[in-house]
Amino acid sequence: MKLLEDKIRREGKILHGSVLKVSSFLNHQMDPELIMQLGEEFGRRFANDQVSKILTIESSGIALALAAGVALRVPVVFAKKHRSSNVFGEVYQTTVHSYTHDTDYNIVVESEFLRSGDRILLVDDFLANGKALEGLLELVQQAGAEAVGAGIAIEKGFQEGGSLLRQKGLRIESLAIVEKMEGSDIFFRNT
Amino acid sequence: MKLLEDKIRREGKILHGSVLKVSSFLNHQMDPELIMQLGEEFGRRFANDQVSKILTIESSGIALALAAGVALRVPVVFAKKHRSSNVFGEVYQTTVHSYTHDTDYNIVVESEFLRSGDRILLVDDFLANGKALEGLLELVQQAGAEAVGAGIAIEKGFQEGGSLLRQKGLRIESLAIVEKMEGSDIFFRNT
Repeated sequence: MKLLEDKIRREGKILHGSVLKVSSFLNHQMDPELIMQLGEEFGRRFANDQVSKILTIESSGIALALAAGVALRVPVVFAKKHRSSNVFGEVYQTTVHSYTHDTDYNIVVESEFLRSGDRILLVDDFLANGKALEGLLELVQQAGAEAVGAGIAIEKGFQEGGSLLRQKGLRIESLAIVEKMEGSDIFFRNT
Repeated sequence: MKLLEDKIRREGKILHGSVLKVSSFLNHQMDPELIMQLGEEFGRRFANDQVSKILTIESSGIALALAAGVALRVPVVFAKKHRSSNVFGEVYQTTVHSYTHDTDYNIVVESEFLRSGDRILLVDDFLANGKALEGLLELVQQAGAEAVGAGIAIEKGFQEGGSLLRQKGLRIESLAIVEKMEGSDIFFRNT
């Protein structure tokens, strides 16, 4: 998606050679108009998939997921990263490894918000090693629901998550796929 | 705001006498159309205040803040609840006490995202004891910016945060103020 690629080229920062920082518009700070346009694009790409609910993970996925929910007119659920004292009753949960923070964490969704028969669109800001998406898929399976695909803003094509999950049959729509980063240059895969 | 009060009456759940659970539409699960309408209402109420940026706190405030950002056409920043390894450089930070979780946590914003001269609208889903808002105000002050007010979805009028912060001169626009909860009945203050 040219709009997103251009924004990444203009405002993205490369740190330590492999970290792409887009926190001026996609997560820590958000450009609301851009986020809504990305959500509309997810809406177009999954318009015919009878999505009944969107599932994301706190915190960076929430804004994009809301925008997709506006476009597809379906509820949005975010998995919480640990059991909070405000989570009551039955839950689906699993453990996710974070390479960014070099730690494991639990992700939790109250079971009333994912139902057997739901057709779930997963949404997240980044796809790199794929561990967060795998965790969300596990929650969908625990619920007996179906994942119709994943909408990702930025996929790091040089990490293995995207190809591994596509091999497993997951449809992944990434709006920008970074093929490589060299110095201050960012190269995108043609999508 | 009648739309929100009606939704709370229909879908809100009272737990342990004083916990109002609205996670079917406002946070854990979100109703995107409702969230966007609440954001539009914040936009109307702060339309003439030259808001330059919106500040919220992860995770439950993000969706509402994005919706307000769409309405007011300004960037949205969320404070992170602890220093993550993806936060680089200079930051503003302070400590907030959570009564819900009976613990203290840090909130952090990278200093490049709050500037002296910014006119900040604070947004959050709930206002109860006011500790989260106080923490956000502290970050705004550290940045030398100005808080033009706070947009809150649900204020618990029977807790002291709202009156304390209004006494300090903060303009608070709460879209629904819960006066009391008795059994399964919820009473709202006329606003």
